[in-house]
Amino acid sequence: MRRVKRENLDRLFNPGSVAVLGASANPSKLGFHVMKSLVEGGYRGRIIPVNPGLEDVMGRRAYPSITALDAPIDLAVVAIPAGGVAGVFSECREKGVGGVVLITAGYKEIDDPEGARLHDELFALAESAGIPVIGPNTFGLINFRPALNASFTPEFSRIRPGGIALVSQSGGMAHLLGFSAEREGIGLRLIVGLGNRLNVDFPEILDYLVEDSHTEVIALYVEGMDRARDLLRIGKEVRGRKPVIAYKTGCSEKGNAASLSHTGSLAGRAEIYRGAFLQCGILPVDNAEALLDGARALSACPPPKGSGIGVLTAQAGPGMAASDRCERGGLRIPSFSATTQERINALLPPLALRTNPVDMGPAWYDPGALSRVVGAVMEDIHVRGILVLMMFASANMDVLAGLAPLLKEWGQKKPVVSCILSPRGIWDGLVEELEASRALVNYPTPERAAAAMVNLWRYGQALS
Amino acid sequence: MRRVKRENLDRLFNPGSVAVLGASANPSKLGFHVMKSLVEGGYRGRIIPVNPGLEDVMGRRAYPSITALDAPIDLAVVAIPAGGVAGVFSECREKGVGGVVLITAGYKEIDDPEGARLHDELFALAESAGIPVIGPNTFGLINFRPALNASFTPEFSRIRPGGIALVSQSGGMAHLLGFSAEREGIGLRLIVGLGNRLNVDFPEILDYLVEDSHTEVIALYVEGMDRARDLLRIGKEVRGRKPVIAYKTGCSEKGNAASLSHTGSLAGRAEIYRGAFLQCGILPVDNAEALLDGARALSACPPPKGSGIGVLTAQAGPGMAASDRCERGGLRIPSFSATTQERINALLPPLALRTNPVDMGPAWYDPGALSRVVGAVMEDIHVRGILVLMMFASANMDVLAGLAPLLKEWGQKKPVVSCILSPRGIWDGLVEELEASRALVNYPTPERAAAAMVNLWRYGQALS
Repeated sequence: MRRVKRENLDRLFNPGSVAVLGASANPSKLGFHVMKSLVEGGYRGRIIPVNPGLEDVMGRRAYPSITALDAPIDLAVVAIPAGGVAGVFSECREKGVGGVVLITAGYKEIDDPEGARLHDELFALAESAGIPVIGPNTFGLINFRPALNASFTPEFSRIRPGGIALVSQSGGMAHLLGFSAEREGIGLRLIVGLGNRLNVDFPEILDYLVEDSHTEVIALYVEGMDRARDLLRIGKEVRGRKPVIAYKTGCSEKGNAASLSHTGSLAGRAEIYRGAFLQCGILPVDNAEALLDGARALSACPPPKGSGIGVLTAQAGPGMAASDRCERGGLRIPSFSATTQERINALLPPLALRTNPVDMGPAWYDPGALSRVVGAVMEDIHVRGILVLMMFASANMDVLAGLAPLLKEWGQKKPVVSCILSPRGIWDGLVEELEASRALVNYPTPERAAAAMVNLWRYGQALS
Repeated sequence: MRRVKRENLDRLFNPGSVAVLGASANPSKLGFHVMKSLVEGGYRGRIIPVNPGLEDVMGRRAYPSITALDAPIDLAVVAIPAGGVAGVFSECREKGVGGVVLITAGYKEIDDPEGARLHDELFALAESAGIPVIGPNTFGLINFRPALNASFTPEFSRIRPGGIALVSQSGGMAHLLGFSAEREGIGLRLIVGLGNRLNVDFPEILDYLVEDSHTEVIALYVEGMDRARDLLRIGKEVRGRKPVIAYKTGCSEKGNAASLSHTGSLAGRAEIYRGAFLQCGILPVDNAEALLDGARALSACPPPKGSGIGVLTAQAGPGMAASDRCERGGLRIPSFSATTQERINALLPPLALRTNPVDMGPAWYDPGALSRVVGAVMEDIHVRGILVLMMFASANMDVLAGLAPLLKEWGQKKPVVSCILSPRGIWDGLVEELEASRALVNYPTPERAAAAMVNLWRYGQALS
C-alpha cells in the first residue's frame, strides 16, 4: 500500500510557501530555530509565521492561524504542543495545505496509551486529507536544491549541495551524519528525519527519491520498521535504478530496547534486515562512517565490472593494508595480463614490486614513467577498478599534479578510489579538484578506500 | 638476545650533534630534505652536513667526511648510495658515532643476492662497533621532545608533541599515521621507521620506550618479523607497564607477497600474530584508524575496572549505535543500581528512556537536571566507564559548557569516551579543552568511541 502520492511529496519538498506554526522570537523555543533555518537558509519562497500571540516574527507579519491567511500554503511546519496538533491538522485539511513537517513529539514513543491514541487520530486526519506528514517527533527536513531548511537546526544550511539523499529514522543520527558531511565537505541532496513516520515511511521516500533527478544515491539510517514488506516491494522496484545504502542499528539487546522507546518500533534482528536489504539490492553497512563513505563512492564512481582490482601504491605499506581489506571483502588483486606486465617491467626497476599491487615508489622521480605505469594498469583487461594510494613526500610534491590529467581521463571509465594524503593544506585543493571532476573519490585511510571499493563492486553485482 | 643497549638508543634518540651524510642543496636529493627537517624542525644541537663536493649546506660548513670533523658525532643520518655505506660504517666505528639512521635502500628488500650480502656486512660492522642502526630503507625518526626531525619529511615537525610513540615497519604507514595525527591534532612522542631493521627491531624499541618517561602508549605497525620470539619475551616484560597497541597487515595472499618484497620479511599468518600479541597484553587492531583511535584512548584515560558501561546520550540513535558496538566488543550496558535509577527517575520525565542507555534529551533545557543525571550515572557502582554522545542542537548550544566541570571532575576516576559533535568551529574549542584536561577522549562517530572503550577495557583486562 502506497499511502502518499509522489506529487504530494514533491509539493512538500519544494514548497512555494511555508507556514511555521509555533513561530517564535524566543531562542528557547524550537519555533524560533525553525524560523531562523528558513530565513537564514536561503529559502526563496514565502515564509509565514503563525502564532496567535505575536504581531510579527523576524520581520515577517505573523498570523493567528493558517486559516486567517488568504493565500495557499504548500508546507506547514508544526512546532506546537501535542494537544493542539489535531486542531491544526483539521485546519490544514480545510486550507488544502500540501504537506506537514510535524516536529512536535509525545506520541507513540512515550510510555502512555494516550500517545498512541493521538497518533492514530492524526493518521486518520492526514489520510482523509491526503496530506503527507514528515514526523511526528522529527527535527524536520532540509532540501539543498532549491534551498529549504525546514528544520530546527539552522546549521544544516552550511552543508554544500550534492547528490546524496540522507533519510534517517533518528534525529541524532541525522545530525551526526549531517555535521560529518559539513565537516568533511560532503555534498547532500536532502536530509529527511522520518521520526515516528505517521504516513511517510521508508517506502514512500524511496519511491519518491528514485525518480528525483538530483538524487544520485540514497543513504538510509534505519532502527526498526513496521512495514518491512512494503520496503521490500519498493526496494525491488528501485533495484538497479539508483544505489541505496543502509545502516541498521538496534542489533544488540539494549539497542533494541532503546528503539522501542525512541521511535515506537522494535528494531528486530540484524540478520533479517541484512537479508532483506540484500534481496532488494540495498547495500548494508555497519557504522555511520561506512554509510557516508559508501554513499560518496556510489555517487561519484561507476561500479567495477568485475572483482579484479589494480592497486597502485606509492609506498608498499598502505598497499598491503588495502589488499588485505579488498580480499576480506571478496575482491581480487589479479595478476596483470602479459602485455601489461611487460609494459610495467620496462618502466620500473627490478627492485620494485612490479606485480599487482604495484609499488610505484621507484618511479617516483620520473613523472613520465609514473604516468605510463598508471596508464598500463588502468588499461589492463583484468583490472576493473583502481585503488590509488599515495602519501605525500616532501621530495616530490608535484607528483599528484602530474598524474591529475590521467586520473581525470580514466576516472569515469573504471572506478578510481584513493587514499591520497598530505599534511593539512598541501594536496587538499588538488584532491578536492579531482573529486569535483569525478576523477576519483578519496578517503583518509587505505582501509576505508578499499571498503568503499568493496561496496561499489557489491552494487555492481546487484545490478547484474 | 638484545642486540642493542638501551643507553645507546638513548644517545641515538637524543643526540647533541647530528651529521648528515649526503647533505645536499639540491631539492631532488633526500639529503636536502633531511637537512631541511633538522634545520626547520627546531633541533637545537649541532647540525653537520657531510658531502665531499660542497663547502656548505644551508649556511652550515660542510665536511668531506665525518673523520674530517674534530668533534664527537652522536647521530649520523646516512642518505648516500648503497655502495658507499660500508665505508661510512667503518668510519662511524672509528669515530665513535653514537647511532645511525640509514635512509639508503637497496638491501634485503631487492630481488638480488648482493642486497642480502651488503645487509650482512653492515650488520657485522654495526655489531662490532655497538652502534644501533635505524634502517636501512627508512625515512628516519622524529623525536618531539626535545625536537629532532631526522627524517626526509620536514612536514612531520608540524605534528604537536604528545604521549603516543609510533613505531612503524613501513614508511608509507608512518606517513599515513603521522599526517593523520597532524590533521587531527593528535600529539606524538616520536615516530620511528624501522625499515629493514638491521639491529634495531621491535623488541629493542619496546624495551627502550617502556622506560621512556615521555611515552604514554606505544603504537606499532607491523608487517612481518624475523624475531617473533624476542618480541614475545620483551612483550611479556612490558606487559602491564605501558599500553601497547598493534596493527598487523599482510594477512591476505597478496599482502603477504608484498611484504617479502617490501621489507624482506614474510608477513605470516594473521591469527598467529594476534595470539602472540594477546599473550603479551598487546592490543591487536585491524586498521590504521583504529590504531590511532585506540592509542588516543590509552594515552588519555584510565582503563575501566570492569565491563559495565554507562551510556549517556543526548539523542537515542547514537546511543543505539554505541550500545551495539559495545556489546559486540564484549562490554555490557548494565542496569543501574536502585539508588541511581531512583535519582534519574526524579530528574527525567516518564517519556524519556531513563534506563541504561539514558536518553538525556528531555533534560536538555534544564542544565541542573542534566548535570545531576550525568553525576548519578558516573557514581553508579555498576558503571565502570562512561560513553557520552551529544550532537549539537542549535536550541541549546551551551549544554556542553554546563557539563564541562562535571566531566573534568570525573574523567580521571572513570574513563569518559565521547562522541560530541557540532558543525565545524562551534564546540571544537571546548572539546579540545576537555581533551587537553584529560576529562575525556572524543571521536567523530559513536561507533569509534565505543570501539575505543572496548580497547580500554581489554587493556584493563590484560593488567589484571
